[in-house]
Amino acid sequence: MELFANPSSAHKAGYDARKRLEDARKTVAAAVGERSDGVIFTSGGTEADNLALLGCTSRREERIIITDSEHPAVEMSARELEKRGREVVRLATRGGKLDLEGLEAEAKKGGVELLSVMHVNNETGAVYDVLQASRIVKRYNPRALVHSDCVQSFCRESFTLASLGADMISVSAHKVGGLKGTGALICRAGVRVRPLIFGGGQEKGLRSGTENTAGIAAFAAAVSEAAPLIDAERERIAELRERLKALLAPHGVIFNEPENASPHILSLSIPGVKSEVALRLLSDRGVMLSAGSACSSKLGVSPVLKAFGLSREVADGTLRVSFGRQNTAEEIEEAAKEIIAVAKMRH
Amino acid sequence: MELFANPSSAHKAGYDARKRLEDARKTVAAAVGERSDGVIFTSGGTEADNLALLGCTSRREERIIITDSEHPAVEMSARELEKRGREVVRLATRGGKLDLEGLEAEAKKGGVELLSVMHVNNETGAVYDVLQASRIVKRYNPRALVHSDCVQSFCRESFTLASLGADMISVSAHKVGGLKGTGALICRAGVRVRPLIFGGGQEKGLRSGTENTAGIAAFAAAVSEAAPLIDAERERIAELRERLKALLAPHGVIFNEPENASPHILSLSIPGVKSEVALRLLSDRGVMLSAGSACSSKLGVSPVLKAFGLSREVADGTLRVSFGRQNTAEEIEEAAKEIIAVAKMRH
Repeated sequence: MELFANPSSAHKAGYDARKRLEDARKTVAAAVGERSDGVIFTSGGTEADNLALLGCTSRREERIIITDSEHPAVEMSARELEKRGREVVRLATRGGKLDLEGLEAEAKKGGVELLSVMHVNNETGAVYDVLQASRIVKRYNPRALVHSDCVQSFCRESFTLASLGADMISVSAHKVGGLKGTGALICRAGVRVRPLIFGGGQEKGLRSGTENTAGIAAFAAAVSEAAPLIDAERERIAELRERLKALLAPHGVIFNEPENASPHILSLSIPGVKSEVALRLLSDRGVMLSAGSACSSKLGVSPVLKAFGLSREVADGTLRVSFGRQNTAEEIEEAAKEIIAVAKMRH
Repeated sequence: MELFANPSSAHKAGYDARKRLEDARKTVAAAVGERSDGVIFTSGGTEADNLALLGCTSRREERIIITDSEHPAVEMSARELEKRGREVVRLATRGGKLDLEGLEAEAKKGGVELLSVMHVNNETGAVYDVLQASRIVKRYNPRALVHSDCVQSFCRESFTLASLGADMISVSAHKVGGLKGTGALICRAGVRVRPLIFGGGQEKGLRSGTENTAGIAAFAAAVSEAAPLIDAERERIAELRERLKALLAPHGVIFNEPENASPHILSLSIPGVKSEVALRLLSDRGVMLSAGSACSSKLGVSPVLKAFGLSREVADGTLRVSFGRQNTAEEIEEAAKEIIAVAKMRH
């Protein structure tokens, strides 16, 4: 009953729905060491990224710094800011390593309003040093805000906003076992956000629209389940990943590995086999992989893989393996067999 | 399986999800006589209204016309446009009747970019004459777009975009038996929309973010179920409404009835009993009503009831009864008994 009522309604079912909503807010906030006040529920990670970039920038003469391998939700929001006359600087992430020297040179000039650096790259698994980047920017720009797209790392890596040096982070429900259509921007106290969507004043006026109560409840349930398992899962998945690498390495498969990689993602290339072809063949055999990311599927060759430093040929043959809680050791053996079969077709 | 995959993914589960999404698009479009191309899925009615007002206005020197009793999603978007320097005209809707003479006077001046008139008012049930309003505006402003917030009327009244003279309408899933967190802006061919949320380019670039596939599938299922029953339900509910009125009338209850009312909503006042008090008493007895609308609950005394012409005292005692597919004749008798008990307390 309580999930169908409107949390803004002044009857019992409405109060119950509101209570569920506030409990969910606590659960999501606590997973990254914050208080529930900081959580703005959105329709997903994309809207959260938009809210950070478009809703938290207002000093027209100042610059915004992002990386050259952000999710399209950040990259396209940055392009929208450019259209509105703002200057955006893109830091290199070659080999999956954030260019901190380049960042320092930019930061020193002053006039930085916002830094947005993703935590874990969705295509290569590279873990970026958000904390160092934050310190560098804030040293020279004490008023600057730091945002991090944590869609890939939330409930997979152990971190808090403080440990990242972030003022706000974006998270998504469907990446942690919840449903598509729910996400959040989680902010530290004192961050000023201007809304992008106007109306009934829900989410303290920062995100109007009747709250997606069922999606939010499912999000909190998924977080409750995943958060205590982060370390154990990380270890288990690191083993699965190593096993897959060991099985594939003798067959000419190349691994596009950053120095500091999240175990949840493995980017690999089968030189000479285009990824579309490989994906179709693997899909027919029940192995669901992606080339780059689903979210970049409309952008042509992945800008992220280009930024990583892959040649066009290697990038064209790149597959992304995502490991999750459902994946078992048996599935990895099976997937390896099928990938090897595809790799053998290139002759 | 197909509901969990990403519709942009290039594997079989992804294709299946995409197919479900496109089928849902057809179902939702067909319910208002449109082709599926026109459907932009959003996170709800509020976002759809924002997309219409903020995403379809760009001629800075031209005016926007709305009514004085729109849903906050339209009213607050209009205020945002005013903040950005745009002129917004608000038409009177006294007694639930749209001021068409006032509209004609405005339209004649030319320079109207957008007219937004809701179809059925969510607090009073008033049905506004969108078609006449559209004709008047377009006669003098052939380039003007006409938008209608049809959240209350979708799948409750029989209409098409053409029968309303609308270029685009907003609809919401949870008002037709779907889940909160899904809605759509449905546009006629040729309407140009600029996105409010940027990213992976979903919904033809007009609404980025991984599609809420489960919410969209549930939306389409709800529409499939509700659309064929519109006329029968309308008749059944009109009877329930008349029965409730007949039961309450002898007990000093006032009905705030527009000339042309949708049967799904009955606005009534118990003079001398504040609506908060009445709501709490009724809620304790299992009768869930609203004062005005849940979406306006943060705005103080309802601007809609004021626009209707109610005195502050009557508005303060106003309750909104919404009739839906679940409501039975027995429930109406029960609700009447409880409302009468509350009405008797005023002495």
